[in-house]
Amino acid sequence: MVERQSGVALWRQIADRMRLAINNGDFDETGMMPPEVVLAGRFGVNRHTVRSAMAALTEEGIVRPIQGIGTRIERRDRLRFPISRRTRFSQGLGNQARDLEGKLLDAATEAAPAIVTEALGLAAGSRCVRLEIVSSADKRPISRSTSYFPADRFAGMAEAYEKTRSITASFRELGLPDYVRRSTEISAIHAEGDDMRQLKLSPGAIILVAVATNTDLDGTPIQFSRTRFAADRVKLTVEPEPEVISGSRG
Amino acid sequence: MVERQSGVALWRQIADRMRLAINNGDFDETGMMPPEVVLAGRFGVNRHTVRSAMAALTEEGIVRPIQGIGTRIERRDRLRFPISRRTRFSQGLGNQARDLEGKLLDAATEAAPAIVTEALGLAAGSRCVRLEIVSSADKRPISRSTSYFPADRFAGMAEAYEKTRSITASFRELGLPDYVRRSTEISAIHAEGDDMRQLKLSPGAIILVAVATNTDLDGTPIQFSRTRFAADRVKLTVEPEPEVISGSRG
Repeated sequence: MVERQSGVALWRQIADRMRLAINNGDFDETGMMPPEVVLAGRFGVNRHTVRSAMAALTEEGIVRPIQGIGTRIERRDRLRFPISRRTRFSQGLGNQARDLEGKLLDAATEAAPAIVTEALGLAAGSRCVRLEIVSSADKRPISRSTSYFPADRFAGMAEAYEKTRSITASFRELGLPDYVRRSTEISAIHAEGDDMRQLKLSPGAIILVAVATNTDLDGTPIQFSRTRFAADRVKLTVEPEPEVISGSRG
Repeated sequence: MVERQSGVALWRQIADRMRLAINNGDFDETGMMPPEVVLAGRFGVNRHTVRSAMAALTEEGIVRPIQGIGTRIERRDRLRFPISRRTRFSQGLGNQARDLEGKLLDAATEAAPAIVTEALGLAAGSRCVRLEIVSSADKRPISRSTSYFPADRFAGMAEAYEKTRSITASFRELGLPDYVRRSTEISAIHAEGDDMRQLKLSPGAIILVAVATNTDLDGTPIQFSRTRFAADRVKLTVEPEPEVISGSRG
């Protein structure tokens, strides 16, 4: 489960896996980390590596060693990201983070792949605006998304996003006051390449993938997106539909 | 990303990762597997290992080598499992598999953990019936679940499940004709221990975890479950609510 030739220090990978285990509630029964020897066995590394990983988590304020007792878990910090008809990034994370930031990595207008034109109900080869965005909460990268918008209707999407830093606000700038989620498909993969680097993950780390289509209130598709969430930082929640409030901020 | 001291042959692990990549649509643009040397680089193994993994996938009918051209992808087979108010295992997978089977691994009546009693609105330490189930589609294990039911209301749950092999049918046997999903929380972890063995996964494989609460139609919680899906075999889908049909089969 750990990659020994990856160029990422082993203790870093083990720290990532421990953080994930803590966030998953693996040690919730006692609220304490298991002894070094147990962790070494579980992760298949030696106690020295466990100690280095634990030091990193202590530094991050996630665990705290207590003299003569053991290591207490201080903080679990996986954000809850709702998947619903009304899903918006900033609104979704709401009061779970103080500082939400979207950064536009790349933008282009181009012929969209078949999977995109099909989802958007466009003719094969239709042009779309593509936006590549990394979203962070309190300076930690949370997700990286690739979104496509029909180019004839949303030609100014990249400029609007640069100005507003919000998809919802960009739609509004371009004359669309409201929209809803049509469908979301959730899968999980291993982090690789660009996503791994942008989300600051180590080899073997897990990415939750949400592929979604949004429509305007008439049901016309307006956005196809593939969002990759760092699984050690986010869980996705599906809850009953809230009331539809037109023009909500997100 | 691969575990070299796991006792599972490296080519088996690589075959699992290739299957996942195929199911994720990584090679959909061409419909062909990349050349051996590219796959060897991507997975950090030598070409001999890639060849063994590819032979296994050929055996499974997932890819097919075509003389002088390359290796064509024949089949992607991740099941789509819907997460909605009306989620039921058998209904959910519907016509995607011919043979759906639930196997009861273990059953007990016991004091439930705090996370369960809280979700079910019970006093701390209340007794619940716990069922451990492995579900398979066409003989392939798809998910492993741990479910809790309030013991005073559903004392006969284990017997009902043994008889009907369906949670929905068991509820009906015990006088509850219908129920709905209240909430689902989705996360992803690495497969370990029992789950890894029961789902026939290799080390480093990914599990999608769905934690859910169901209620009767009056809103009283009746089931808390934690279901672990093999991420290489399932994607979870969230779609608009269908009409509520009372007493539907599942």
